Amino acid sequence: MQLGMIGLGRMGANIVRRLMRAGHSCVVYDSDPHAAEALASEGAVVAGSLADLVHRLDQRPRAVWVMLPAGKITEQTVAALGELMQPDDILIDGGNTYYKDDIRRARMLAAKGIRYMDVGTSGGVWGLERGYCLMVGGDTAAFEFLDPIFAALAPGAGNIPRTQDRDGRDPRVEQGYLHAGPSGAGHFVKMIHNGIEYGMMQAMAEGFDILRNRASETLPETERFDLDLADIAEVWRRGSVVTSWLLDLSAEALARDERLQAFSGHVEDSGEGRWTIEAAIEEAVPADVLAAALFTRFRSRQQHTFAEKMLSAMRLGFGGHVERPKR
Amino acid sequence: MQLGMIGLGRMGANIVRRLMRAGHSCVVYDSDPHAAEALASEGAVVAGSLADLVHRLDQRPRAVWVMLPAGKITEQTVAALGELMQPDDILIDGGNTYYKDDIRRARMLAAKGIRYMDVGTSGGVWGLERGYCLMVGGDTAAFEFLDPIFAALAPGAGNIPRTQDRDGRDPRVEQGYLHAGPSGAGHFVKMIHNGIEYGMMQAMAEGFDILRNRASETLPETERFDLDLADIAEVWRRGSVVTSWLLDLSAEALARDERLQAFSGHVEDSGEGRWTIEAAIEEAVPADVLAAALFTRFRSRQQHTFAEKMLSAMRLGFGGHVERPKR
Amino acid sequence: MQLGMIGLGRMGANIVRRLMRAGHSCVVYDSDPHAAEALASEGAVVAGSLADLVHRLDQRPRAVWVMLPAGKITEQTVAALGELMQPDDILIDGGNTYYKDDIRRARMLAAKGIRYMDVGTSGGVWGLERGYCLMVGGDTAAFEFLDPIFAALAPGAGNIPRTQDRDGRDPRVEQGYLHAGPSGAGHFVKMIHNGIEYGMMQAMAEGFDILRNRASETLPETERFDLDLADIAEVWRRGSVVTSWLLDLSAEALARDERLQAFSGHVEDSGEGRWTIEAAIEEAVPADVLAAALFTRFRSRQQHTFAEKMLSAMRLGFGGHVERPKR
Amino acid sequence: MQLGMIGLGRMGANIVRRLMRAGHSCVVYDSDPHAAEALASEGAVVAGSLADLVHRLDQRPRAVWVMLPAGKITEQTVAALGELMQPDDILIDGGNTYYKDDIRRARMLAAKGIRYMDVGTSGGVWGLERGYCLMVGGDTAAFEFLDPIFAALAPGAGNIPRTQDRDGRDPRVEQGYLHAGPSGAGHFVKMIHNGIEYGMMQAMAEGFDILRNRASETLPETERFDLDLADIAEVWRRGSVVTSWLLDLSAEALARDERLQAFSGHVEDSGEGRWTIEAAIEEAVPADVLAAALFTRFRSRQQHTFAEKMLSAMRLGFGGHVERPKR
Repeated sequence: MQLGMIGLGRMGANIVRRLMRAGHSCVVYDSDPHAAEALASEGAVVAGSLADLVHRLDQRPRAVWVMLPAGKITEQTVAALGELMQPDDILIDGGNTYYKDDIRRARMLAAKGIRYMDVGTSGGVWGLERGYCLMVGGDTAAFEFLDPIFAALAPGAGNIPRTQDRDGRDPRVEQGYLHAGPSGAGHFVKMIHNGIEYGMMQAMAEGFDILRNRASETLPETERFDLDLADIAEVWRRGSVVTSWLLDLSAEALARDERLQAFSGHVEDSGEGRWTIEAAIEEAVPADVLAAALFTRFRSRQQHTFAEKMLSAMRLGFGGHVERPKR
Repeated sequence: MQLGMIGLGRMGANIVRRLMRAGHSCVVYDSDPHAAEALASEGAVVAGSLADLVHRLDQRPRAVWVMLPAGKITEQTVAALGELMQPDDILIDGGNTYYKDDIRRARMLAAKGIRYMDVGTSGGVWGLERGYCLMVGGDTAAFEFLDPIFAALAPGAGNIPRTQDRDGRDPRVEQGYLHAGPSGAGHFVKMIHNGIEYGMMQAMAEGFDILRNRASETLPETERFDLDLADIAEVWRRGSVVTSWLLDLSAEALARDERLQAFSGHVEDSGEGRWTIEAAIEEAVPADVLAAALFTRFRSRQQHTFAEKMLSAMRLGFGGHVERPKR
Repeated sequence: MQLGMIGLGRMGANIVRRLMRAGHSCVVYDSDPHAAEALASEGAVVAGSLADLVHRLDQRPRAVWVMLPAGKITEQTVAALGELMQPDDILIDGGNTYYKDDIRRARMLAAKGIRYMDVGTSGGVWGLERGYCLMVGGDTAAFEFLDPIFAALAPGAGNIPRTQDRDGRDPRVEQGYLHAGPSGAGHFVKMIHNGIEYGMMQAMAEGFDILRNRASETLPETERFDLDLADIAEVWRRGSVVTSWLLDLSAEALARDERLQAFSGHVEDSGEGRWTIEAAIEEAVPADVLAAALFTRFRSRQQHTFAEKMLSAMRLGFGGHVERPKR
Repeated sequence: MQLGMIGLGRMGANIVRRLMRAGHSCVVYDSDPHAAEALASEGAVVAGSLADLVHRLDQRPRAVWVMLPAGKITEQTVAALGELMQPDDILIDGGNTYYKDDIRRARMLAAKGIRYMDVGTSGGVWGLERGYCLMVGGDTAAFEFLDPIFAALAPGAGNIPRTQDRDGRDPRVEQGYLHAGPSGAGHFVKMIHNGIEYGMMQAMAEGFDILRNRASETLPETERFDLDLADIAEVWRRGSVVTSWLLDLSAEALARDERLQAFSGHVEDSGEGRWTIEAAIEEAVPADVLAAALFTRFRSRQQHTFAEKMLSAMRLGFGGHVERPKR
């Protein structure tokens, strides 16, 4: 079938490629005209504007996928498409949009008969080869209509062992795409996915930090170990309980450079980790680990927090402790 | 080669089975005589006491594997074997012993010429089929001598994709067994493994808790979702970043019963999670996520903490808040 | 001067009392007519409706204080007063309103020339005697106009030792009332106050929990202490670093019943603790302690979390651990 | 009465001063001979060695107070005194010793008939003026014997309001000294005091950090406040729930320099915070806030943790995210 794609960054471009390889036809647009060049040579139809893209889609209903950074640019593009598209058309936001924005937009577009789908998309740089894990929110009929697109993007069952006791459940889930619920549900599920990802990453990272500091001279000599982190990560890939993709990636990074000297230790966070905590708070669910994982990232981006200076100021006040920087 | 096994619980018995299937011969002992019956029928030589087991091992040096609950019983057994075994013999502790106990014991036994090896063993109920991930501490020559045993127990390379940039590194690691360092290093690495395991489990668990509570009636109706947790776990197994064995297990459990009604929510902790935090504290490494994961388990086993009553008492004191149980 | 008070719960009624004792005159209203009876006998003018209250205020500009539970009822009352009051009048919200609601309301009312002031009010059941700590947001001229009201409500300097280096700073702060900034700033400061309060309470509570469990039979006998918590709290009131009002309240509660048997351990949270974490997240400030304090309260209100069941389900999956409730 | 003091740092010297002001006589010793000079001029008898100090104490039983940094130096001094002192003599450790060391030492010295007392001492630089809060572990008869010393050092009841419902309880507690229990109990209670102190400080510090970052340009303009932290701390001293000595100290520090530019943000921790968490773990008591407070200090002393680099390495692996330092 036919899909319009707006936003040809790494994610957008690779989604288009994976669809074209599966025999779908794509009309593409990016505000940077150079972004479309490679895709054109691979068979994509290149549009010169949003209006042009909508115009060039000749199948009905139209399906347009927006793959832009979450926030203002996606908001504006969705709004513009709301003016250009027609009743029954389907507008897909595949970015990392806040689910409450999805709910609002879906309602707005529904007033014009346009169907809005929110698609949480996991897969990163590996999606082109392995396929994308898709979590979809929105209208059921639209989800069914887009099935060929989702099926082409998803990884498929592959050689992953089947989970027992799934008889009678939706088989598409085992192909790697899920209709999670009404508008917002797709991005909500993707948001929690990322929240969990933060927590798992932090658990792994803290463990390796403790392993690494076991050679510290502050420890009694017999309790000091000079451990090989690359080998530890590797051996855990073989039958241990922490076997995971994140462990595979850790093993690779540590094999390349056990000291990780290429990395500054400054870690960004995207919105999903923050929204996950806000969702937990709304629901009164304790989320100690997910919150701690988020706060670690906040902390990593500062030389020192004001809170730490407050601690020193109080210590000076009651104990006369004069603290100086490490160096 | 020949191995003596002391302790025929699930772990010990299955290790013996996996070794015999690989052609090794085993002499086994358990304080409960019935424990050895099944293994006898599968080819193991059954000893009637520790002394008898040592006596029946006719290859030199002897290798004896102790697979008992960490703590007093293991301590006593190791001490008794120290009296029975001879210089150059090898005594293996495959349980979850505290690494500082390993260091102490190794030194004690070294005085008699006996070589003590600490082997962290991961694999749980799946080890017999899949093999055990082994983290070994102790003397290098003893590690080399035991190589056939470790190689038979480990999972082997299987079809797990190779990690790049490992050329020139110890190939045994990719088979699933690692010589981590001197005495204590094996159990230290296993301990951190379990610490990470706690953190990853808690991250996963909190995420599903937030998903589950998204249907709560306290939320605005449009922001409520009645999510299918079994399907969410399943779809994440397909190309998402949180792909992991723990996710596989979650998917299975949720497919069986999405409400997990069979579980009380009372969660035990074994020593490794506690020792991990103590190791972090010794090294002055921040371990927020690993500590939070441990504390969650402590909390899960109480109706209410005294701390919570203190909060209520203070709230009554300053605000006149009178709090009552939920029901 | 003259003040209208809407909402005659404990806080509202005591504020009226403290103002009348200082010579101010109050017109009061509560949807429950009985609420005003006692105040009438103490000198308050009782109004029969919002409109009546506005009508009975004969000084200009009018000043009306709303002291109702934050949320819908306050929102409606403010909206209704927006219709009844006139340009230059001052509408005060003394409740625990979310500061973003203040910002919105202030803008709405400003369009009509009505000045909206947000006043964070701390003091609880002790305010009538000791005075209220006031954190005020909104227009500077309105703040100045209301100065006699704030001065009467605040505790005054009392015998609290003066802070050094305050020369040249606003002396009203030392009387216990602060013009924190524009609309929303008052409730923002009060919100953070409560966030800190949660953290301090939890720190205190955890410490006493550790003291209390020191008699546990699971500990080695020589390391067990049967500590007197009431005496410990008392001695810390005398020259220790943790000296605080919260400690005073703890000492009182423990002197009354060292086991706190009157308390269930179910702990409520009001919005401020939640909003504090959300503010921290907006600012990318790590708030580990304040978040942990909040989550403890969430946890205290559940028998078991779903997350805990997830942990058990995973443990069963990989280790065959079958967990049962403690009892 | 007569007391020997070993260790004339700020704490030791001021304790001697406070005792002499109360009419007690002191024999003092410090390995640095200059340390005793000032005290000599104030009336102390100066000893030239440990043996000399013991020799110069002419009252029986002797009472010797050791006020040295916890650890090796205290350990050696206690051992040396164990050789020099006689049955029935009393040896006091007033430092921040680990309670398990107290238990061990008390047993060792008891074999010689020497009574060992562990005295947790809070008061810092203010102790000379205000008195010290004392938490004492050890033999009851020795505690009674030392009563005049403790009474002189403690702050006394002062003008601190009495706690209700204390009738029938030990009145000495209200003077500021407590017999907490057998050996180790004094330092155990002091250790928990410091653990709570860490948590309260961190709660305060995080709150001010959020206040401070409220002016951040990343926030919507209407939600930004340029708050005066010195005034906020000051107003909270007047009737708010967070009233505390730590708040007084914060108010002072912020009045001096609201940006705390004199402080690097590098924060030390003493052993008590660490031991508190270890005690909680031994007791299986959740201590989320106290642990988070400790970890913040660990983190404050590093430019970047290895854990943070691990996070970046994983992010590069799955998402192609290339992270760079802030500057």
